[in-house]
Amino acid sequence: MTDLDKHHRMANAIRFLAMDAVEKAKSGHPGLPMGAADIATVLFTQVLKFDPTAPHWADRDRFVLSAGHGSMLLYSVLYLLGYEDFSLDQLKNFRQIGARTAGHPEFGHGAGIETTTGPLGQGLANAVGMAIAEKLQAARFGEALVDHYTYVLAGDGCLMEGISQEALTLAGHLKLNKLIVIWDDNGISIDGKIDVTDSTDQIARFEASQWNTIRVDGHDPVALAAAFRKAQESERPTLIAAKTVIGFGSPTKAGTAKVHGSPLGADEIAATRKALNWPHEPFEIPSDVLDAWRIAGLRSAHAHKDWEKRFAAADAETRAEFERRNRGDLPAALKPALAAYKQKLAEERPTLATRQASEHVLNVINEVVPETIGGSADLTGSNNTKTAQTKPVTPDDFSGRYIHWGIREHGMAAAMNGMALHGGMIPYSGTFLVFADYCRPSLRLAALMEQRVIHVMTHDSIGLGEDGPTHQPVEHYASLRAIPNLHFFRPADVTETLECWQLALGAKKTPSVLALTRQGLAAQRKTYVEENLCARGAYVLADTDETADVTIFASGSEVEIAMDARAKLEAEGVSARVVSVPCFELFEAQSADYQADVIGTSKVRIAVETGIRMGWDRFIGTDGVFIGMSGFGASGPYKELYAHFGITADAVVAAAKKRLA
Amino acid sequence: MTDLDKHHRMANAIRFLAMDAVEKAKSGHPGLPMGAADIATVLFTQVLKFDPTAPHWADRDRFVLSAGHGSMLLYSVLYLLGYEDFSLDQLKNFRQIGARTAGHPEFGHGAGIETTTGPLGQGLANAVGMAIAEKLQAARFGEALVDHYTYVLAGDGCLMEGISQEALTLAGHLKLNKLIVIWDDNGISIDGKIDVTDSTDQIARFEASQWNTIRVDGHDPVALAAAFRKAQESERPTLIAAKTVIGFGSPTKAGTAKVHGSPLGADEIAATRKALNWPHEPFEIPSDVLDAWRIAGLRSAHAHKDWEKRFAAADAETRAEFERRNRGDLPAALKPALAAYKQKLAEERPTLATRQASEHVLNVINEVVPETIGGSADLTGSNNTKTAQTKPVTPDDFSGRYIHWGIREHGMAAAMNGMALHGGMIPYSGTFLVFADYCRPSLRLAALMEQRVIHVMTHDSIGLGEDGPTHQPVEHYASLRAIPNLHFFRPADVTETLECWQLALGAKKTPSVLALTRQGLAAQRKTYVEENLCARGAYVLADTDETADVTIFASGSEVEIAMDARAKLEAEGVSARVVSVPCFELFEAQSADYQADVIGTSKVRIAVETGIRMGWDRFIGTDGVFIGMSGFGASGPYKELYAHFGITADAVVAAAKKRLA
Repeated sequence: MTDLDKHHRMANAIRFLAMDAVEKAKSGHPGLPMGAADIATVLFTQVLKFDPTAPHWADRDRFVLSAGHGSMLLYSVLYLLGYEDFSLDQLKNFRQIGARTAGHPEFGHGAGIETTTGPLGQGLANAVGMAIAEKLQAARFGEALVDHYTYVLAGDGCLMEGISQEALTLAGHLKLNKLIVIWDDNGISIDGKIDVTDSTDQIARFEASQWNTIRVDGHDPVALAAAFRKAQESERPTLIAAKTVIGFGSPTKAGTAKVHGSPLGADEIAATRKALNWPHEPFEIPSDVLDAWRIAGLRSAHAHKDWEKRFAAADAETRAEFERRNRGDLPAALKPALAAYKQKLAEERPTLATRQASEHVLNVINEVVPETIGGSADLTGSNNTKTAQTKPVTPDDFSGRYIHWGIREHGMAAAMNGMALHGGMIPYSGTFLVFADYCRPSLRLAALMEQRVIHVMTHDSIGLGEDGPTHQPVEHYASLRAIPNLHFFRPADVTETLECWQLALGAKKTPSVLALTRQGLAAQRKTYVEENLCARGAYVLADTDETADVTIFASGSEVEIAMDARAKLEAEGVSARVVSVPCFELFEAQSADYQADVIGTSKVRIAVETGIRMGWDRFIGTDGVFIGMSGFGASGPYKELYAHFGITADAVVAAAKKRLA
Repeated sequence: MTDLDKHHRMANAIRFLAMDAVEKAKSGHPGLPMGAADIATVLFTQVLKFDPTAPHWADRDRFVLSAGHGSMLLYSVLYLLGYEDFSLDQLKNFRQIGARTAGHPEFGHGAGIETTTGPLGQGLANAVGMAIAEKLQAARFGEALVDHYTYVLAGDGCLMEGISQEALTLAGHLKLNKLIVIWDDNGISIDGKIDVTDSTDQIARFEASQWNTIRVDGHDPVALAAAFRKAQESERPTLIAAKTVIGFGSPTKAGTAKVHGSPLGADEIAATRKALNWPHEPFEIPSDVLDAWRIAGLRSAHAHKDWEKRFAAADAETRAEFERRNRGDLPAALKPALAAYKQKLAEERPTLATRQASEHVLNVINEVVPETIGGSADLTGSNNTKTAQTKPVTPDDFSGRYIHWGIREHGMAAAMNGMALHGGMIPYSGTFLVFADYCRPSLRLAALMEQRVIHVMTHDSIGLGEDGPTHQPVEHYASLRAIPNLHFFRPADVTETLECWQLALGAKKTPSVLALTRQGLAAQRKTYVEENLCARGAYVLADTDETADVTIFASGSEVEIAMDARAKLEAEGVSARVVSVPCFELFEAQSADYQADVIGTSKVRIAVETGIRMGWDRFIGTDGVFIGMSGFGASGPYKELYAHFGITADAVVAAAKKRLA
């Protein structure tokens, strides 16, 4: 058997596993695995550095299937290479509940899946983050410990999504030369031929963003191998445009949209078996082919062994630090540093915008947590995310800790997911809260993938004033609280800001959004308590001795209003409690008893927040009073806006008295 | 005074109005108006076709300030040209509550503002929609009535946002030759020089997407005028890359980030007055300059008059139809056509996925409403948005009614906003509901701008099955219901689908999202009623004679489960009502009495929906039973997923009985 024959048989193994699994599941996408089988075969058997017996090895090359609908390509390859999590039974259970082989690759379902893909373009942008992470870690720990590539297989859909532009311009600007994107250029999308919807010269487009580009026949293994070698030597990120036939091998459906997202059908599969000379039963891989794959699986085991030797030769401190960061554990110095600063804040009680408070807290954090990587989507001065410790990263120097992401919120959030997935660092961002909408698909994926990424989102309400309704979040608190496994924090003062940061850093499996004010806020916590009160999600900030007539619930900047209202009510002989609610999600995680205690038994319950009511009934009941927004904001000085929309202490007092009357 | 002197004085009028207004407001962005004043002067005094006395003239050229933070550029020009809504007093009230001159241009605040901008990249994509709309209308009504350009002034931020890639590739593909984008190439963003964050060759990038490109000195009025003339003659959309100095004229701040987003300060303004030889008081425009601007304002009045003549010469039917569509009124034939079809449905009671039901209803609508423009973001067959009447639009033929948007959800939604703003058509889209996240910033702007755009979003729950959690909406119902002035519809069967479509078409000032199932649903409405019951937002679908023990609230596909549960409960002697809740927002608009009637007084209230609980307390109270999702979905056959997540009739029955026990 010639090398070429062997290659074709190995590639056909992918094709038939994909066809068979999709057929058995009665749904799925056979077209991409069939079309890209040659690419995957060359990549995994000749190029990629990995160890199936140690799938979490830190210095493995990363492979991202950005075109996630082609999941059977990945599952097939992982099975063929001998990854333990992807047995033949798993492949037979493709798309069934509980299987590792979900419809789209799901991070965490099995070792070998580097990221969750499916929403198009996300994988490509994740990979940019992984390639950034590699360079950051190499700058810290040296190339002896960190020296790997990141490969992406992307489809036309990935390249058509806007996020791809943010990702690729960032990669080109940062000269991410160890990022290699293979574009499965099959000219087909669901609605038909690509030229029905697009006329972009992708090669020219990538070159315009300072990429190296290579064109290649995606079915020619020799040319593919050469292209990969050339790409590895480039000083810039590389696009390999690999011309392929979608559904390669299918006699009547190859090259058409019909093979994209539906089973081929028994007859067509039979015809494909004939055409590709594959006279085997479904899911049967002839032993010579499986052996060849398994041998390929061991191909770079020596690289792993060599790496282990180099790692063992490093000094103990470096080893410990490398491992700590990769485990995601925080340094022991963080807790006392934050406690000391919290004590200081209790004494000084500064009036600060919470975005400024965040900067101060970050100064403490960044001093003792070397693995934080800050940044902002071109709002550095407004987001207050840059501290003394965070020198900017530049294309030629990744020893810095701050990324000027440019005006690329979506690309930033997706790249941060990739950095977190890569491991060894805690990325935090900066943008305006209203632009959470721009990066929402990536926020969702961070939550789904259980990644610790932290988003600093400032200018969190009408309190930003004159920029007006396009910049004023109104529905965003509710819409972010709605995302499962995302912590949305809205701290009320400098101490709560510290506590929320502490919680965000400590949540290893949960992304966080910190919503921070533009405007100054008085300190509400007057005394030091060691406990992180924000960890309860909601807590009684100001209690009364007796059963209060009124309980006022508020978050963020409106806690000050609630406290003012309380003082006014008390002056009129009305007893009032104030509950600060920095995080709905953490409150839901408390015991029923604690929740009932916090909600209390006041006759009147009022919530105050510069957003819509949605979600607050949990605290005030459907008959409670809500003082907040019911529509979009407006442009004007912020104090006037608060008055204009009736979100004032006086309004709270009036509502309370009316209900008590 | 030479022509050049005159130009400079006219341009300086913009500069100083911007400086003075920002100074007075103590906030705002002077840099762009100062840098782009020459461009705006040439554009508005020599190129643009408009009539300040008839700002809504249908065939005016459109001007979109995509870099919306430079709003004072637009307000200044509108004042100088004599637009009634933008008096000098308005300029003096820049960024004050109630002023037309909000921090960013807000559509509807004054005639002359074509779209709301500020969130970067949106204006550019709106303009692509406007240019599409122009071609569509020209294909229908002829170039005698429709023949205008769309101009955009975009900044680096607009071009860096991912949405810009979707917009420009679409424009290039569709050969929108009457779209002219001026890039204010000042090399500065908030974080500093652009080369800190980006290395893209924008000219090469646009050319890669089949654009015509022109480089020009943005301060050379002669070169600018020539560039505009060349652009007008192009057979492709044109990018004019205009090199400018941000904050032009400011002696110490020009060309730096300092002038981007803060007042210059009194000293620097005084120095700028000196440098530009402008010895006038704040807001004072010398009469020769104002006269020159006002004369320029009348420059294309004759074009308007000529158009009016051509319009008057058209036949009565054409005139009436043109005006009807521009008013946004629906054809009289729609109501009876829908009524007849609704009657048929009541008789036939078909079991259909609501996405299929939607296609059937669209067949009826598209037959009698010629101004609908359908489309899908590469999911035509899945979204069921294409009907017999909707021939696809191609680059060379805009007589069609269906746009293959490609894999560009964000660009699609933003372009649809532009189409609606242009007037004369009702755009509707297609994508999967989970991808509402990809276009959320544009959905928000549609709501803020009160535009009738209709989004068909199918595969609306775990009911889509095997594609898994990345494709299964969970938090999307809540997050879309959270957007003010957006109607989120989740119809339960074919008749409700018809009614929701009717409501979406009838809502002239509100965008709609129709969330539709992949899976088949039985008809729930068994008898014909003329009234559109969905217009109430929620209504009693199945009542009991006595006061029911249980009320079950549900939306969409879960109404079937609610009805099954009701039947099972009744069989066990438990009386149960079912309330269908197709639209929360419309329910909130009902009278308190109606709301109380619908909610009822059942001992047990249960809500069933394949999303999170958020928002449902409104119906079931905080102590009600919610049967739905609390986290992300999973990959598997859909019936198994419903069972897996416990969203079944049996679960409803069990919960009801437990509460009644």
